[in-house]
Amino acid sequence: MELSVEKTASGREYKVRDMSQADFGRLELDLAEVEMPGLMSCRTEFGAAQPFKGAKITGSLHMTIQTAVLIETLTALGAEVRWCSCNIFSTQDHAAAAIARDSAAVFAWKGETLQEYWWCTERALDWGPDGGPDLIVDDGGDATLLIHEGVKAEDAYAKDGTLPDPESTTNAEFKIVLTILRDGMKENPQKYHKMAERLVGVSEETTTGVKRLYQMMDNGSLLFPAINVNDSVTKSKFDNLYGCRHSLPDGLMRATDVMIAGKVAVIFGYGDVGKGCASAMKAAGARVIVTEIDPICALQALMEGYQVLRLEDCVEYADIFCTTTGNKDIIMVSDMRKMKNNAIVCNIGHFDNEIDMEGLETFPGVKRITIKPQTDRWVFPDTKRGVIILAEGRLMNLGCATGHPSFVMSCSFTNQVIAQLELWNERTSGKYEKKVYVLPKHLDEKVALLHLEKLGARLTKLSDDQASYINVPVGGPYKPAHYRY
Amino acid sequence: MELSVEKTASGREYKVRDMSQADFGRLELDLAEVEMPGLMSCRTEFGAAQPFKGAKITGSLHMTIQTAVLIETLTALGAEVRWCSCNIFSTQDHAAAAIARDSAAVFAWKGETLQEYWWCTERALDWGPDGGPDLIVDDGGDATLLIHEGVKAEDAYAKDGTLPDPESTTNAEFKIVLTILRDGMKENPQKYHKMAERLVGVSEETTTGVKRLYQMMDNGSLLFPAINVNDSVTKSKFDNLYGCRHSLPDGLMRATDVMIAGKVAVIFGYGDVGKGCASAMKAAGARVIVTEIDPICALQALMEGYQVLRLEDCVEYADIFCTTTGNKDIIMVSDMRKMKNNAIVCNIGHFDNEIDMEGLETFPGVKRITIKPQTDRWVFPDTKRGVIILAEGRLMNLGCATGHPSFVMSCSFTNQVIAQLELWNERTSGKYEKKVYVLPKHLDEKVALLHLEKLGARLTKLSDDQASYINVPVGGPYKPAHYRY
Amino acid sequence: MELSVEKTASGREYKVRDMSQADFGRLELDLAEVEMPGLMSCRTEFGAAQPFKGAKITGSLHMTIQTAVLIETLTALGAEVRWCSCNIFSTQDHAAAAIARDSAAVFAWKGETLQEYWWCTERALDWGPDGGPDLIVDDGGDATLLIHEGVKAEDAYAKDGTLPDPESTTNAEFKIVLTILRDGMKENPQKYHKMAERLVGVSEETTTGVKRLYQMMDNGSLLFPAINVNDSVTKSKFDNLYGCRHSLPDGLMRATDVMIAGKVAVIFGYGDVGKGCASAMKAAGARVIVTEIDPICALQALMEGYQVLRLEDCVEYADIFCTTTGNKDIIMVSDMRKMKNNAIVCNIGHFDNEIDMEGLETFPGVKRITIKPQTDRWVFPDTKRGVIILAEGRLMNLGCATGHPSFVMSCSFTNQVIAQLELWNERTSGKYEKKVYVLPKHLDEKVALLHLEKLGARLTKLSDDQASYINVPVGGPYKPAHYRY
Amino acid sequence: MELSVEKTASGREYKVRDMSQADFGRLELDLAEVEMPGLMSCRTEFGAAQPFKGAKITGSLHMTIQTAVLIETLTALGAEVRWCSCNIFSTQDHAAAAIARDSAAVFAWKGETLQEYWWCTERALDWGPDGGPDLIVDDGGDATLLIHEGVKAEDAYAKDGTLPDPESTTNAEFKIVLTILRDGMKENPQKYHKMAERLVGVSEETTTGVKRLYQMMDNGSLLFPAINVNDSVTKSKFDNLYGCRHSLPDGLMRATDVMIAGKVAVIFGYGDVGKGCASAMKAAGARVIVTEIDPICALQALMEGYQVLRLEDCVEYADIFCTTTGNKDIIMVSDMRKMKNNAIVCNIGHFDNEIDMEGLETFPGVKRITIKPQTDRWVFPDTKRGVIILAEGRLMNLGCATGHPSFVMSCSFTNQVIAQLELWNERTSGKYEKKVYVLPKHLDEKVALLHLEKLGARLTKLSDDQASYINVPVGGPYKPAHYRY
Repeated sequence: MELSVEKTASGREYKVRDMSQADFGRLELDLAEVEMPGLMSCRTEFGAAQPFKGAKITGSLHMTIQTAVLIETLTALGAEVRWCSCNIFSTQDHAAAAIARDSAAVFAWKGETLQEYWWCTERALDWGPDGGPDLIVDDGGDATLLIHEGVKAEDAYAKDGTLPDPESTTNAEFKIVLTILRDGMKENPQKYHKMAERLVGVSEETTTGVKRLYQMMDNGSLLFPAINVNDSVTKSKFDNLYGCRHSLPDGLMRATDVMIAGKVAVIFGYGDVGKGCASAMKAAGARVIVTEIDPICALQALMEGYQVLRLEDCVEYADIFCTTTGNKDIIMVSDMRKMKNNAIVCNIGHFDNEIDMEGLETFPGVKRITIKPQTDRWVFPDTKRGVIILAEGRLMNLGCATGHPSFVMSCSFTNQVIAQLELWNERTSGKYEKKVYVLPKHLDEKVALLHLEKLGARLTKLSDDQASYINVPVGGPYKPAHYRY
Repeated sequence: MELSVEKTASGREYKVRDMSQADFGRLELDLAEVEMPGLMSCRTEFGAAQPFKGAKITGSLHMTIQTAVLIETLTALGAEVRWCSCNIFSTQDHAAAAIARDSAAVFAWKGETLQEYWWCTERALDWGPDGGPDLIVDDGGDATLLIHEGVKAEDAYAKDGTLPDPESTTNAEFKIVLTILRDGMKENPQKYHKMAERLVGVSEETTTGVKRLYQMMDNGSLLFPAINVNDSVTKSKFDNLYGCRHSLPDGLMRATDVMIAGKVAVIFGYGDVGKGCASAMKAAGARVIVTEIDPICALQALMEGYQVLRLEDCVEYADIFCTTTGNKDIIMVSDMRKMKNNAIVCNIGHFDNEIDMEGLETFPGVKRITIKPQTDRWVFPDTKRGVIILAEGRLMNLGCATGHPSFVMSCSFTNQVIAQLELWNERTSGKYEKKVYVLPKHLDEKVALLHLEKLGARLTKLSDDQASYINVPVGGPYKPAHYRY
Repeated sequence: MELSVEKTASGREYKVRDMSQADFGRLELDLAEVEMPGLMSCRTEFGAAQPFKGAKITGSLHMTIQTAVLIETLTALGAEVRWCSCNIFSTQDHAAAAIARDSAAVFAWKGETLQEYWWCTERALDWGPDGGPDLIVDDGGDATLLIHEGVKAEDAYAKDGTLPDPESTTNAEFKIVLTILRDGMKENPQKYHKMAERLVGVSEETTTGVKRLYQMMDNGSLLFPAINVNDSVTKSKFDNLYGCRHSLPDGLMRATDVMIAGKVAVIFGYGDVGKGCASAMKAAGARVIVTEIDPICALQALMEGYQVLRLEDCVEYADIFCTTTGNKDIIMVSDMRKMKNNAIVCNIGHFDNEIDMEGLETFPGVKRITIKPQTDRWVFPDTKRGVIILAEGRLMNLGCATGHPSFVMSCSFTNQVIAQLELWNERTSGKYEKKVYVLPKHLDEKVALLHLEKLGARLTKLSDDQASYINVPVGGPYKPAHYRY
Repeated sequence: MELSVEKTASGREYKVRDMSQADFGRLELDLAEVEMPGLMSCRTEFGAAQPFKGAKITGSLHMTIQTAVLIETLTALGAEVRWCSCNIFSTQDHAAAAIARDSAAVFAWKGETLQEYWWCTERALDWGPDGGPDLIVDDGGDATLLIHEGVKAEDAYAKDGTLPDPESTTNAEFKIVLTILRDGMKENPQKYHKMAERLVGVSEETTTGVKRLYQMMDNGSLLFPAINVNDSVTKSKFDNLYGCRHSLPDGLMRATDVMIAGKVAVIFGYGDVGKGCASAMKAAGARVIVTEIDPICALQALMEGYQVLRLEDCVEYADIFCTTTGNKDIIMVSDMRKMKNNAIVCNIGHFDNEIDMEGLETFPGVKRITIKPQTDRWVFPDTKRGVIILAEGRLMNLGCATGHPSFVMSCSFTNQVIAQLELWNERTSGKYEKKVYVLPKHLDEKVALLHLEKLGARLTKLSDDQASYINVPVGGPYKPAHYRY
């Protein structure tokens, strides 16, 4: 795509694949709203008061139909919003079009190059001369990363004129980040400082992004308050678990139409995501093998009847390999060479370095046969055996399917809205320092509550006597902070 | 589409959506072959002998990638093949293109009108002046039906010049059949008699089609031998059950992206298809309600923990309704009016009369909103509530997704190949009369055997002593005919 | 026990472990009646008419609480009954006591020797000078076997005075049978001929017993009509499947208290019993391996996610081994020697020759440590590793627990009652020849129907129009004979 | 039983049901050791060093086979031990006998009266003139409670001679506690002060007991350090969840032999225990309804396909009711009156006040029919319908079966051993104040690690590079403290 900003009739900026898909996007948005009771309740509860009036929110989060409902909840509460996706394959173009046309500045399309990806991220952060954003909604932490790297680079430049050097890294993506920072430095050498200073805070929703935040907090480099939305129970124990249980088979089916029953599926990692993935594969009739480094999670896997092995033990006979670890170098090209013909290799963790794509791409003589977008067969020259790689090693559920379904995303995104409200409402109170916070349990419980009626549930009420017996308020919160659910 | 026959460079007839998709179809065919060991074994075992040399085979069966592998197995064994789909939405256009270009005469595209559908069926049966077909591969029995109706009409015409009268029926589809027969009668008043006379037999693979065949056998109207492939264990207990377990959620996800977990799903009918569907919904976290007329199947459903109710008991609170009965008038428009907003209504049984689409389409003031092809929201004027209808009430797994996966279809289609071989090899022996037959158990066991190695199974061998103790041959068959598996 | 017949005050014969347990038995009978709606319906429907008036029924079937409800149903319908168990460990002594005291002549106790077992079987068949029985309720076919062997022996004796020779067999149990026949021959050389002549028929309920009957029918040696109750759908697809799914874990827990989760369980055979067992082990969190000789059943196991291997592949690492094959020599002592320490070895098939108990018992230096009745640890002298054998290799669910629960046995036993009624009502009509019959489908459906209300199910009713469309009567039967459920 | 202390030949005190069962207990202990790798590893790792040399440990914890292995692990590490059970029905008499004979002072038998129960607790705390205990292993907190109440009473008595007044409470059990304290006060008015002063600490393993400890910590009344073993992941997410998944069906089967498949089971509470119970009932083929007060847990239940209702919604049609809440007054007698005949009512939570046993016992005209110990049918006079109460409303898995299986208890008890070691080793260091602590994560992970090999698991090892990427030590701990598993 040509990297130029377009404008709607009303003057709002955007860059999307195809504005003509906006109607289709709107139709699916209408359906999604019915499945997202938490977000719709936020509109009902807070809409009239316009609590976000004056707030400029930048989001870096998969530009899907569900995200579109989130964005329009933020705008319904008064915010002005700019958005980019946090993954090159995860955008649903009709969702992007509908939002760009109707509600917010969107810079996202399915199948961005890395160059395009960071250009979009820059655009989403670019609020023009009046400055902004005030708040960031982050997924994976790339918006946050860019600001922190920007500040670091500006400090170096201010000190002695050192410019960021793209050649200083072998990481292709980080090279681009450094290029961006270098190219903009002279023109605006305090851009990220200003941004960081203004920022009220970020809410971050992935395990991966949160880990980065805690590291920054621990080493004192965090530049603004952060709310860890991932560790709301109604996020990590729902979206990560039940979302992936839904979207792993969805992605596999859309990408490959493969029969899962009877196959051997290896799930790497048995955290919340891995638990959902293993459960889905078992439910579909596969035999599941789990790999783990953590003995507690390994023992959990065993208690569910999964075999716990190392990759080397099963690499030659398994049919489906799915990484969920949040770590890197999980499946190397040397592993892929040992696999059965047409073994399926995919990743559902946030980043694309769980699978050694670089090793595969540079393997001498390897041949890539694109079956369809996001489904490639890579054939090794000597064995003539191929492996089928989904979404080029990136999030397969968003690359090959449409990600998590609306209902579970309503839980996650209601947490996002609440976190954003909390940061904004307390922007002057000093409640939040440059640290990482989780939402209080009563808000977590509230998010769940907003999703019960849709499913026909009837909650039991505690009597005063019972509440006092177990020493909790009648209206909750019902569990101690350390409770694991 | 314009209803005109096209020809390949080699002169083979076809009509498909888009010949340029042939390469894509070939790539998916390559993948599917790896997943269809039964069919590939047939090629290996029988290919050299060319047993179908001289045989003209007409197929009326969903023109998917899997069917493409079947067709190329038939041609690899020497047959000449003409093909149409047996459902207006089930064709995969890239599969049709690949076959049309490379292997057989194909008349099929996704989204035929009923008019187009029967035109395609006629074309698949039209072998030109030399006559044919010799064999039919049928799914649902439409090719067989056309021939039987044709013979009936020709008899009436021969008797007293009576022509078929499309006005004699209110059934829209049957009106078309009668029109076709009427329009062709004068030109070729013995066309179907000649066809029926020549026909060696048909192999039929659906519960629905088989029921028709038995009815015809019972009332003496069956015109040629038939092999009931549906009741091979490796068909009805695999494709119907495990195929639907896979493709129901696949269709739901592709059509609606709806979260299945937490929802109430009503499965109508608890036969093999219903068992697969209920199991899939339970596995995905839904609460499942089953409706049944047969107390035995109802008791089976209860033993698996499903609630057994009538539609009227749950119509107002369920979220997903899926018919699998093979019967008609299962969900009426009066039922749909009572449903929750955006309840999903779909059918995975062979015919489209399980759901009262006519009642819905003609409901005063109803509004149809097409979200995307095969996904419509129908809104009732008074309540403003909508129901989401998949694939216009037809087979939702083929209309909204890609049908059953290759591996399980390999079981079904290997039965088809074996049945066709059996009919052809015995065409002069008189072994098969104008009756319905099932394949002998040792062939059924053979089909299963061909699929074990791919899944890494190791079969135990009986000793002579053990075989004699349980009174079976060491090599099988291992079970009495009445065994239920 | 001393082998002497005792008499109640009313003069009815019996031999049980402890008559003082009759009250306890009655209490559990009261509970069981509530769980056995099929049998209780028979009492309601037929009781007043006393259809069994004059009928003498001998039963050879596990003398449990559920069987007690069956017996009292037979007597409530007018029959006179004598009973023995068909397994040395399966009697529940309180059930036997209650029946002996209140309703019928019982000869059964938990822990019979083989000698005692056959003495009990003789007693159950011994109706005294007036002769009998008229009908047999059989489970495994031992009562039927004794009569057939008796007739064979009497023929030989009549011919040339040849007496049965216990030394002619190495089978310990058959030696006893021959001894019994030999010892009684002189006194009553036509005993079994008279019995066979009088017999109206037998109803048999096990896969194993039925196989014997078909063999006798096929070779022309069957002496009276037989109804194969096992192959009623409401028997083999319920009792065998759901009964074992319940009672395998029950037996394992009562015998060993072992944690099933995390263990590797090998199920031998994937018929109805094996399906139930595998499902139970998976549900409890075990990893399940299936062994099979039949490729169809093997493929079914794979589709459920089970690994299909041979014993030799997993003998060294599996934790639980359970045979369900109906075949012999499944686990040999040479296999047991290779097992892990404290591997659990058990059998849930009808006969005790699936496990090589003789090989184990006679293994040089092996040491038997009885943990408690029916739970033994056998330690090999060299390895010091032990295997835990349940119920001495016999039916572990009846030996170590209480067998199948009442509700599912109500299905099986209602079939028995209906079969007995059918035989008795048609005793003079000539309807039944010396062949094996299955019950007609409408009776099978009726049995199911009688069990629906208890579980709160609401059956859907066919309209006339629908019934005619699918060509079945509105009231059933709904399926063709070959339907597999 | 006569409440008199007996002595072994070696002079160790005890009171058990039947010393002749010691051999049987030892046999089962031998089996259990093989299933408890965590405890056996403790013996191997620490045994030689005798770290508990000089420590007097009192335990109040179900006196089962598994506990026996725990006790002998403590003694193998050098401790002197006195033990009572923490539930009147949970003792396994053969386990008590084996320990009393061989290893420790035991005061416990199955079926204690409340009077006897507290006598046993007193005995377990009574170390004679030299004083003790040094450490307490507690389950439910009764030993801890007695000491705290004792201290409170002694304070009152010291102040103004006030004696505990049993009439001051209507709680039958607390009346007994007060009586004990009153009766012993004059003789030894500083008994509990001395005990509390000496005590190094307690380790507590139940949700219920831990809640009490936190309450005491919060209000400043906690008299000695406590380690919350319950909230070790390897306890609450294993024993509570997988233990109950095993032992709920076990208890139901042993107590009632009821068929679970097809039934409606209501699980009260969806915490770890409720999750295990619901999962077990679903796996056994029941339809599961969950009641919850906490919206988060309710939403989790919905995601697994359970219906979430209030008791009032389903009281009339459900078959099985099981409380797991840790709260009181969950099922009242007024509820029980509405239930179906022979509905099963049971509790698997720690205390017996979840079910309104007092209301039931005092209901006018109610009739109790004891089927067998711990299985009673209570019949209401007007309706003639009965409810079946298990274990008199107490822990049904321990009252009606044998509690959790060895393997999962090995996890829990390894935590106990580690906690006791920690308290004892740090007894002089001041590390532990009068607060409640949880074990550090690396010890939790270690407990899991000790249980992997037995199940054949192979843990993946992190590379240094990977460990650094995710910022954890190569050897763990691998998760942040708030991680929920």
